[in-house]
Amino acid sequence: MSTHDTAAVDGRETAWLHDPIAVPDAQVEASARKRQSQLTKPPGSLGRLEALAQRLAGLQRRVLPRVDRVQISVFAADHGIADEGVSAFPQAVTAQMIANFAHGGAAISVMAQTLGATLEVIDLGTVVAGPPLPGVRHERIAAGTANFARAPAMTDAQLAQALHRGRAAALRAADAGVELFIGGDMGIANTSSATALACVLLGCAAATLAGPGTGLDAAGVMRKAAVIDAALARHALAPDAPLDALRSVGGFEIAALAASYVACAQRGIAVLVDGFIASAAALAATRLAPGCDAWLFYAHRSAEPGHRVLLEALQAEPLLDLGMRLGEGSGAAVAVPLLRSACALHAQMATFAEAGVADRA
Amino acid sequence: MSTHDTAAVDGRETAWLHDPIAVPDAQVEASARKRQSQLTKPPGSLGRLEALAQRLAGLQRRVLPRVDRVQISVFAADHGIADEGVSAFPQAVTAQMIANFAHGGAAISVMAQTLGATLEVIDLGTVVAGPPLPGVRHERIAAGTANFARAPAMTDAQLAQALHRGRAAALRAADAGVELFIGGDMGIANTSSATALACVLLGCAAATLAGPGTGLDAAGVMRKAAVIDAALARHALAPDAPLDALRSVGGFEIAALAASYVACAQRGIAVLVDGFIASAAALAATRLAPGCDAWLFYAHRSAEPGHRVLLEALQAEPLLDLGMRLGEGSGAAVAVPLLRSACALHAQMATFAEAGVADRA
Repeated sequence: MSTHDTAAVDGRETAWLHDPIAVPDAQVEASARKRQSQLTKPPGSLGRLEALAQRLAGLQRRVLPRVDRVQISVFAADHGIADEGVSAFPQAVTAQMIANFAHGGAAISVMAQTLGATLEVIDLGTVVAGPPLPGVRHERIAAGTANFARAPAMTDAQLAQALHRGRAAALRAADAGVELFIGGDMGIANTSSATALACVLLGCAAATLAGPGTGLDAAGVMRKAAVIDAALARHALAPDAPLDALRSVGGFEIAALAASYVACAQRGIAVLVDGFIASAAALAATRLAPGCDAWLFYAHRSAEPGHRVLLEALQAEPLLDLGMRLGEGSGAAVAVPLLRSACALHAQMATFAEAGVADRA
Repeated sequence: MSTHDTAAVDGRETAWLHDPIAVPDAQVEASARKRQSQLTKPPGSLGRLEALAQRLAGLQRRVLPRVDRVQISVFAADHGIADEGVSAFPQAVTAQMIANFAHGGAAISVMAQTLGATLEVIDLGTVVAGPPLPGVRHERIAAGTANFARAPAMTDAQLAQALHRGRAAALRAADAGVELFIGGDMGIANTSSATALACVLLGCAAATLAGPGTGLDAAGVMRKAAVIDAALARHALAPDAPLDALRSVGGFEIAALAASYVACAQRGIAVLVDGFIASAAALAATRLAPGCDAWLFYAHRSAEPGHRVLLEALQAEPLLDLGMRLGEGSGAAVAVPLLRSACALHAQMATFAEAGVADRA
């Protein structure tokens, strides 16, 4: 957490952000690297799958890492900025999609079942409160954020609550012995919030990052960028005050995602970051808790054009580039089998000695 | 099959190459596209996964395609060109790796088990004949090809046999109701053969396509390119005579791969093409049987530098780009979960109407 933040969040409420980040085991990672060099294949011929297995080994402190137990926590919330007409979909969709997650009909529901992953949905506050549903945690902070074109998106207390909700998801993952954490997002208009947040942290204009989101046309994107630029001028935020930025232009789900990443890094759980929204949260996380980036893997390059800029800022080379732009954690879920393949190859391939295969001449 | 081929292969032996290619069902593909547009997500937001599901639907003639049943046929053979010092590994490795495939220690063995895929290994002729092994079909044509730096790699009869072996693997897949076919390759020095073949078909010099293979250094790559260019000058092959090219500079496993792709297209089985060797075979297949490309998916962009040129010639946009360069079908196997995710999302997601979610405003 930056000391430049002026957010009057109760220090006791956010002190946990200063807890130490878990340290990957370089010795174990070196042992995994040695094992890779002995497997029956030309050295390096599994490409990035080799590095994935080695890095996971260091993070999990075991030469043969696994990503069998995966938790997907989808944070859902509404955004006051939707009032400015920055989304192609009506705001009621956020709550409707929570029901769709619970009933198994959403993309992330299908992927969770396909992967055998645990899926939990955290309702942080939709405009219309939904009914109790299995698999949905109703941890509502408010009926959406305030419209950040006119006021700060959250109060200090709301920000602290959103951060705590995100941290709690990571702690549940830790308690369950989860080997990989995926955070998903649902919130109509949340690309506007993520764009505004990233613009603050990167010190750039909205035109650099704003994109069509769920389907704006070119005129809609220009209007969205203008709304964001005007809001940023009103709030006058500093790049080195991530809590201020989250409070003023963030969303409940974006703050929760950022906090979940920090808490996973503190508890030693590898994270697979999804697309544009999740990467904006990851950027905030790395500003809140430098060093947490050691725990973050990047799943895919989104079709949302600003994602390329975010990934470059994060020095991230994602695993997939399939033109996805759905959110919910869906791109991360689709990339999970790559991590599993990397682990299976690393653990189960024979060495040259075991197989009686001649090494290089 | 081109009528320009002068290979004196018995016409009855290769007449099957003229059999008609199965025709994808455009009506079913359109129905699948319509279904995609009704699923609870912004249109297009699953990116290439949407197109994959739609294309598979047309190929499999069902609106909800599946890739549960996968057959991986690894064709292994030795290459006389290895005598020219064009590989970093000794030639004995080909036979040793066949045993490693059978014992479950090779990358493709691990991936086959991970995917629940059927793995068969076809020994088309190694320098040292191996013992009988479970899962290995000994269909040996000769103890490797002749050194194509000095003579044609195969006789006409050997080429016909290699093509038949490849076709037979596809027919086994058809009989087993396989939903996706992967052809793998194993053969020390086979990047030299694949490079020579592709140079003929594309009319380019070896320097355009030659790369390190299993691990040559820069000087080794230059020497390899010189060996190939000299051989191509000796054989004086025409781009529009793919059988001549396969016979003169191909490998048993490369010819078998090409034939397996053609036969899959004839029988209506989708193919997931692996890396450099497999793509050279795919190029030959599309020359032997124009139209078979409708059945070919491309799994990944190999680190072997010439693969980029091959993919461009094939107008292929592969799914993955992870720096893999192992062969065996391993890159294709790693990409299978992407096809499965595409099918699962397409089949199991709810429509807007089913989920009671509002569509765009």
